[in-house]
Amino acid sequence: MDQKTILTQIVLNTWQTQLERCTSFINNLTDEEFMMEVAPGKNRVIYLVGHLVAVHDAMPEILGLGKKAYPELQPVFVDAPDRTVEKITPISELKQIWITVHDRLTKEFAKLSADDWFKRHESMTDADFEKNPARNKLSVLNTRTAHLAYHFGQLRLLK
Amino acid sequence: MDQKTILTQIVLNTWQTQLERCTSFINNLTDEEFMMEVAPGKNRVIYLVGHLVAVHDAMPEILGLGKKAYPELQPVFVDAPDRTVEKITPISELKQIWITVHDRLTKEFAKLSADDWFKRHESMTDADFEKNPARNKLSVLNTRTAHLAYHFGQLRLLK
Repeated sequence: MDQKTILTQIVLNTWQTQLERCTSFINNLTDEEFMMEVAPGKNRVIYLVGHLVAVHDAMPEILGLGKKAYPELQPVFVDAPDRTVEKITPISELKQIWITVHDRLTKEFAKLSADDWFKRHESMTDADFEKNPARNKLSVLNTRTAHLAYHFGQLRLLK
Repeated sequence: MDQKTILTQIVLNTWQTQLERCTSFINNLTDEEFMMEVAPGKNRVIYLVGHLVAVHDAMPEILGLGKKAYPELQPVFVDAPDRTVEKITPISELKQIWITVHDRLTKEFAKLSADDWFKRHESMTDADFEKNPARNKLSVLNTRTAHLAYHFGQLRLLK
């Protein structure tokens, strides 16, 4: 295994581990727990789950793998804070979106070669990438993994 | 920047970003906030800070860079849950340990070559490493980064 492949594997493994833990946690939540705050006055579970899936649904765009499938999530779960949007996506729908978004990512990631991961992401110009080649697609995935772990830590306070 | 350096840079950058954010957050906490719970009945800030620094102080051992400097942290902040140990490290001392532990890691990391990062970590046998070369020192660092982000997400609920 060459070093590019090994590194891609490391970053994908960390992502996969965090995602599996978070998915399993979410699958075991009751509808009542979905509506609870992770701490008094802080985000509700439904908002954090919507936030994570909205950010993950946008990943194909920055990775050059296609458009968001659920653009309606962004204004509710990213642009607006919790409790400021009246009509929020229902829990059952959000759970289905969680599955669909991550199935898509898993399938797309499986198609990418190690070399693909080392290409610049879509928010970088060629000139910027030349200056900082560590800001590639793999670095985007690793940053999203830290973001996932951050909010998963908050969700876990519920239990 | 050669390819190998780019690889290690991706993982080191994510670690560094999370560490800087968490350090800056901790530096701005009052002593009163240090003694608060991140959510009702959950870990106190002082415990989570002690937990993170205890785990980071153990990193040189698994990376083959030397012994823990503060072995007394492990029984209090890793082996025991919060509020079960009577005598806990004072806040001012913990803040100093935070600086010392991370200064050491920064210096040690700067000395490691890209090839060093791709070597097996100390908890792996040679045979296991041959089967799974992705379980190298870099993978340890990436896992610790996710662990840091997870607990930093919890600490952030305080503000």
